[in-house]
Amino acid sequence: MPSYRAPVDDTLFLLNDVLQFQRFGNLPGFADMSPDVASQILSEAGKLCEEALAPLNQSGDANGCKRNADGSVTAPAGFKRAFEAYAAGGWISLPVPEEYGGQGLPYTLSMAMNEFASSANMAFAMYPGLTQGALAALLTHGSEEQKKLYAPPMAEGRWTGTMNLTEPQCGTDLGLLTTKAAPRGDGGYSITGQKIFISAGEHDLTENIVHLVLARIEGAPAGVKGISLFIVPKIVPNADGSLGARNGVSCGSIEEKMGIHGNATCVMNYDGAQGFLIGEANRGLNAMFVMMNEARLGVAVQGLSQSEVAYQNALAYAKERLQGRALTGPKAPDKKADPIIVHPDIRRMLLEIRAFNEAARGLALAAALDSDVAHRSDDAAARQAAEDRLGLMTPVLKGMFTDLGFDNAVKAQQVFGGHGYIREWGMEQFVRDARIAMIYEGANGIQALDLVGRKLPREGGRAIMAFFKDGAELLGGHSANEAMKPYVVPAQAALSDLQKASMWLMQNAMAKPDNAGAASYDYMHLLGRVALGLMWVRIAAAAIEKKAREPDMAALMDAKLTTARFYMERMLPETSLRLARIVAGADTMMSLAPEMF
Amino acid sequence: MPSYRAPVDDTLFLLNDVLQFQRFGNLPGFADMSPDVASQILSEAGKLCEEALAPLNQSGDANGCKRNADGSVTAPAGFKRAFEAYAAGGWISLPVPEEYGGQGLPYTLSMAMNEFASSANMAFAMYPGLTQGALAALLTHGSEEQKKLYAPPMAEGRWTGTMNLTEPQCGTDLGLLTTKAAPRGDGGYSITGQKIFISAGEHDLTENIVHLVLARIEGAPAGVKGISLFIVPKIVPNADGSLGARNGVSCGSIEEKMGIHGNATCVMNYDGAQGFLIGEANRGLNAMFVMMNEARLGVAVQGLSQSEVAYQNALAYAKERLQGRALTGPKAPDKKADPIIVHPDIRRMLLEIRAFNEAARGLALAAALDSDVAHRSDDAAARQAAEDRLGLMTPVLKGMFTDLGFDNAVKAQQVFGGHGYIREWGMEQFVRDARIAMIYEGANGIQALDLVGRKLPREGGRAIMAFFKDGAELLGGHSANEAMKPYVVPAQAALSDLQKASMWLMQNAMAKPDNAGAASYDYMHLLGRVALGLMWVRIAAAAIEKKAREPDMAALMDAKLTTARFYMERMLPETSLRLARIVAGADTMMSLAPEMF
Repeated sequence: MPSYRAPVDDTLFLLNDVLQFQRFGNLPGFADMSPDVASQILSEAGKLCEEALAPLNQSGDANGCKRNADGSVTAPAGFKRAFEAYAAGGWISLPVPEEYGGQGLPYTLSMAMNEFASSANMAFAMYPGLTQGALAALLTHGSEEQKKLYAPPMAEGRWTGTMNLTEPQCGTDLGLLTTKAAPRGDGGYSITGQKIFISAGEHDLTENIVHLVLARIEGAPAGVKGISLFIVPKIVPNADGSLGARNGVSCGSIEEKMGIHGNATCVMNYDGAQGFLIGEANRGLNAMFVMMNEARLGVAVQGLSQSEVAYQNALAYAKERLQGRALTGPKAPDKKADPIIVHPDIRRMLLEIRAFNEAARGLALAAALDSDVAHRSDDAAARQAAEDRLGLMTPVLKGMFTDLGFDNAVKAQQVFGGHGYIREWGMEQFVRDARIAMIYEGANGIQALDLVGRKLPREGGRAIMAFFKDGAELLGGHSANEAMKPYVVPAQAALSDLQKASMWLMQNAMAKPDNAGAASYDYMHLLGRVALGLMWVRIAAAAIEKKAREPDMAALMDAKLTTARFYMERMLPETSLRLARIVAGADTMMSLAPEMF
Repeated sequence: MPSYRAPVDDTLFLLNDVLQFQRFGNLPGFADMSPDVASQILSEAGKLCEEALAPLNQSGDANGCKRNADGSVTAPAGFKRAFEAYAAGGWISLPVPEEYGGQGLPYTLSMAMNEFASSANMAFAMYPGLTQGALAALLTHGSEEQKKLYAPPMAEGRWTGTMNLTEPQCGTDLGLLTTKAAPRGDGGYSITGQKIFISAGEHDLTENIVHLVLARIEGAPAGVKGISLFIVPKIVPNADGSLGARNGVSCGSIEEKMGIHGNATCVMNYDGAQGFLIGEANRGLNAMFVMMNEARLGVAVQGLSQSEVAYQNALAYAKERLQGRALTGPKAPDKKADPIIVHPDIRRMLLEIRAFNEAARGLALAAALDSDVAHRSDDAAARQAAEDRLGLMTPVLKGMFTDLGFDNAVKAQQVFGGHGYIREWGMEQFVRDARIAMIYEGANGIQALDLVGRKLPREGGRAIMAFFKDGAELLGGHSANEAMKPYVVPAQAALSDLQKASMWLMQNAMAKPDNAGAASYDYMHLLGRVALGLMWVRIAAAAIEKKAREPDMAALMDAKLTTARFYMERMLPETSLRLARIVAGADTMMSLAPEMF
């Protein structure tokens, strides 16, 4: 059975030494966050994930969810108890404001917990994860009454949440949505239609499920400007929060999928179900985007999470499995063969994964910090800068983390040779589970379009200009330091590739939008690789400083510096390939008639 | 349910126009191979695969193989009848010499059939595929008596074959092998030990199974120089070929795997089973390598096969699925949305797959032709040149085709969005099935080491020097042709990257073998990308010529030229990234102590 240990120390190093979490002490919820408190919280988080969630990962995959004849769904054995422990530990309520039943602590800590929980059991972690996303949408766009009624039981983990967008004919293109909302006269609506691919749509973990559902109010404009968002509870709560009548929503079937078998992916049938409008009519997409942006970061972290847990297991196998001898002569002459970690190509795979994991974790935590600043700072300029960064990075993190998370799970599986293909070793489950993250919450091609079509041009390119400025300042600040050269020089070259690509887009995509579409995927990955590179520069700087300050940390910090060099030498050069593809333009790609494919 | 149409026309174009198959009319078995005959044979092959094999692919995956209480194994429903049809069609015997029950036709045609069969049903195609591999080893190293006894029933498909190398402690490192062979006094041996991961190790398709088993004769030297190869029939045949007694070999269990569920992956227990030495004692690896090299090409083609069938289905979906509008305005204004093939990023994915498939098919057929020349030509120089090319390209094709075949199946799945993750659409099966090809017959890292450590330096680099010479001649021959410039110029740059990388290896890997190990994977992919590029140059030249000669083929040929340009603009530039990684060397990678990972 695969094992998992939460990377608490690495997370604390990133928070304390690299991101200097302490700088944010003035934000609400951050005041008491000393390194010791953060360490205690993350250690508790890790313990729960290691002890309660990870042991259910393989059995959850093997047994899956079961839809019963009455339409109820039974989650895998043990999930209900684990969910209760998760909720009781306060892990759902952690970032929720105190007035709505939460603890008001930094979302940044939630982000770390989300990574740990997803590594331990991705299918499980979706239940609380979706609940947190629904909570975010509700808290941003719900009425005071709605917030008071729904948020506390969700924060406490008595109810869970879902998001209902997709319909059979309508995935990316939400304008095609046909689910109907008819006014009931009492201020509520009657919701009718079918939603598909609804994660955690039905289960037995909690007494109630709060569905957030996109639907079209009768007579609303066609397209995306006629879509509204509704709360459709499985059981309609009374005004005092007690459970009332069963609503007209049910799970019609659950999908047989490639992975995440522990999470029920439901066809949800709405048959005149009672629904309550959230926010303004016809502005439903806006409200849903709050949930989707939070969910996109959550999905990004799923990519990282599978990469991390797959890495840990591949590393353990590489140290244990004896096969062949080192090219430079036996390293374990007393044994029949050397452990395979002596082989350069095994190290290549491990280092490619590790060089992603540590910097990606830094980027995820930095994004979460930006989210905290954007929501909690009283400094408007700081809020705007954080929002810009978050808007720019959300599609990049979703697209790149899930692509590389999957690739890395595949690499880690490869380290196992034939055993990687056998179910009992657990590696192939990481691959199957990781695969969905590239697809849902907007397939990665859609993330790329969102980046290039919306996030880049927004406000005259303010966010990307700030990215360049921050990058130049970071690199400039270290350029005089000889020890930083191996990191600063390649990062400078990569940043320059990104600037060229951005310039090319400005000059070539306005008049010819297909050039933007054709460039989008490579641009997303180019920006992502540069962001990882800049994060490695920050990590390297922190490691050099920490090493000088705490000599007993030298070996650990040297390992980080080696990994940083590996990233710079072998991974960051990819930026020039991405640039070459971008400037190739759309002509060849678009010239083939569909029937000639 | 996914669909499949065998690419008969493209195969014929490659054989007739690009590879000029007719040039080989002097080889045994090629004389009657007019384009018409080849077309008939391939059409029949395609028909069988489309009609008899493809319909069993999803059900074979869903139902899998079943080991019964008596140790027998039942293949999925329909497989037995399909295997009989496959055998009756002469598809196993096709390349086998007539004196051993075969038809003596070109192996090149078998290669085409193997692709079709693997696309239609990869798990199924392994049964005849392994039989052909075992036949090849038997015909090369078996005694006349062994050949007469075993080859005809295998060629007829009454018996199948397997290869038994792996043991729990011994995968790549065959020196660790412990299965024992004790002389019985009658010239035979008694085989005892356990083999794992034995594909098609037990099943109910045929009356007998011929296991080729590596074992160590008592008293043999330690390591790989003490390994011998044995025939161990499931049922020992009498001298007249009739079935005799059940042998002491049985299937202990079958593995639960990620994919290829239609093929039983067996733990095989040898308990004093009667075995017959093939070839010389202690030279078993040599004999097995014949089977492994044939099997490696077969596995390479599995990569291509999954890429092809996944492409076909993704393309059909991209033409049908309506979602969003083209960036340049509606293309299907009468419909609610445009088919997603209007979107550049969808085209990017499709073209990346297609640009691989067509050139890879050309390389596979070229390798098969080399195999035919190496085995059948009476011109020693031609045989040697073909053997050199085949030796060099076999690990490259195995490694690159299976890596890209898997990546392409993932891309094709991505085109389907959420539906790609759902089992009934069939795309996730292609991904799961394709995954094994990167692992078995030598994990791809081992292919890379074989290339860099053995194939490159052999005979003073004769094979790679010939590759450079052939490449330079090909490009030189087209350099004066303006119409060929878009293909020749990028191919020249890529070839130059390969030359630089080869030079770097010569200068840096002798003294420091870790540099070879660290470079190996990138070198394999670099050589592979260049080989695909040179094949696209050949295809482009043939397309330009055919277009001039046959005006009604112009649209088809233009599509090939567009795909060639796409390859040159967007895929071939990867060679410079591979070169950059290679010359980064091993220092960073090897400097991290195992405990610091």
